[in-house]
Amino acid sequence: MAARKAVILASGGIDSSTTLALAKRAGFSLHALTFNYGQRHRCELDAARRVVAALGAAQHVIARIDLRVFGGSAITGDLEVPKGRTLDRVRSGIPVTYVPARNTIFLSFALGWCEVLEAEDIFIGATAVDYSGYPDCRPEFLGQFERLAALATKAGVEGRARYRIHAPLVNMNKAEIIRAGWDAGVDLSLTHSCYDPTAESLACGACDSCLLRKRGFLEAGIADPTRYADPESTPGKRI
Amino acid sequence: MAARKAVILASGGIDSSTTLALAKRAGFSLHALTFNYGQRHRCELDAARRVVAALGAAQHVIARIDLRVFGGSAITGDLEVPKGRTLDRVRSGIPVTYVPARNTIFLSFALGWCEVLEAEDIFIGATAVDYSGYPDCRPEFLGQFERLAALATKAGVEGRARYRIHAPLVNMNKAEIIRAGWDAGVDLSLTHSCYDPTAESLACGACDSCLLRKRGFLEAGIADPTRYADPESTPGKRI
Repeated sequence: MAARKAVILASGGIDSSTTLALAKRAGFSLHALTFNYGQRHRCELDAARRVVAALGAAQHVIARIDLRVFGGSAITGDLEVPKGRTLDRVRSGIPVTYVPARNTIFLSFALGWCEVLEAEDIFIGATAVDYSGYPDCRPEFLGQFERLAALATKAGVEGRARYRIHAPLVNMNKAEIIRAGWDAGVDLSLTHSCYDPTAESLACGACDSCLLRKRGFLEAGIADPTRYADPESTPGKRI
Repeated sequence: MAARKAVILASGGIDSSTTLALAKRAGFSLHALTFNYGQRHRCELDAARRVVAALGAAQHVIARIDLRVFGGSAITGDLEVPKGRTLDRVRSGIPVTYVPARNTIFLSFALGWCEVLEAEDIFIGATAVDYSGYPDCRPEFLGQFERLAALATKAGVEGRARYRIHAPLVNMNKAEIIRAGWDAGVDLSLTHSCYDPTAESLACGACDSCLLRKRGFLEAGIADPTRYADPESTPGKRI
């Protein structure tokens, strides 16, 4: 019997890469979905390609969608990326790098692809622990999306498909996610997190995402493979 | 006091144009949202521009999103557009012009724009009467999306925003929609419905969408302003 297909949202970061590896370990055939949504950090897309290739996906689609038309996010170029904040500050509230309704949009596309693939399983690397201010990373939201999916498609309504949103990291912090990724065989050096990398794709070491990543490796007790722009940047030093 | 803002999904067809006019009549400031999603019938976009301009929207955004990457729909070029079918055939089941999870995706973008605009009202020209096979046009689906929206954004979770999905046409057939649009002052000659227009944007007169449109005008008792490729094409003749 062929493996069940799953659509996995893959951004090239640690969370979604770990999620890909967990979906693979659960026996799914991987259909990875990455969005080119006008983000500043395009090297995220290269990271997604490398990670997906390394894990051996059946298919990898990079969908181009323009989220810049609405404005309102540092990720899509309207606002400044904040640097050197404390982790308390990073973890509370919604960061300016928030993209409006992002997970709702991403899950909708995943659902559309599921319909075409006749797949029922969607994996997302959402976590409700860090960035607790993101409402669309919480289990309540993900459960509600599952109920929406049941009503949104013919296969769902007719009971031929039962869509499931898998968020295996939802209760993990960054250190736990790094450990889970490491255990599941993710080559973490292929992943990218920085919101403001150099032209050579070196991480800035000071944006919210770099700070969380550094601290995560430190707490996980795993050597940080990230290439930082400042070679003196000691993991965890600024935190 | 400034008018309340609403995001209105505007495709350039009769349904969404009527919806725009109804939102205007209800006193909303119109923020029209059109998708360039790789559809065959690009002149739909021109129609959307004309209709939105004629109704005097505060803003019109055309968002480019690539739904072709998944395949699976005649609208996005993978399958043949069927011609000359009976209306019974047209109305039953899901047409090949269905785009997977389309309304879920469109509403998600509308929600994202609402967040940026600090708007709470989304209008969609969904109707559950014709094309009864589209699950994502039914009131159950739309109500579920409203519940999702309440959990998807910070303003929703904190009770500062109460998102409403308005689908004023949901229980109308095409003739009733045409009458409602006419009454609300829509210039129906600006709208476009055909799935397979000529290079000069003339309607084919034979695809499902043309058949429903012709019959609608006939039943509404309103002269059909559509420019058909075949000038002998008598409205309603093939039905």
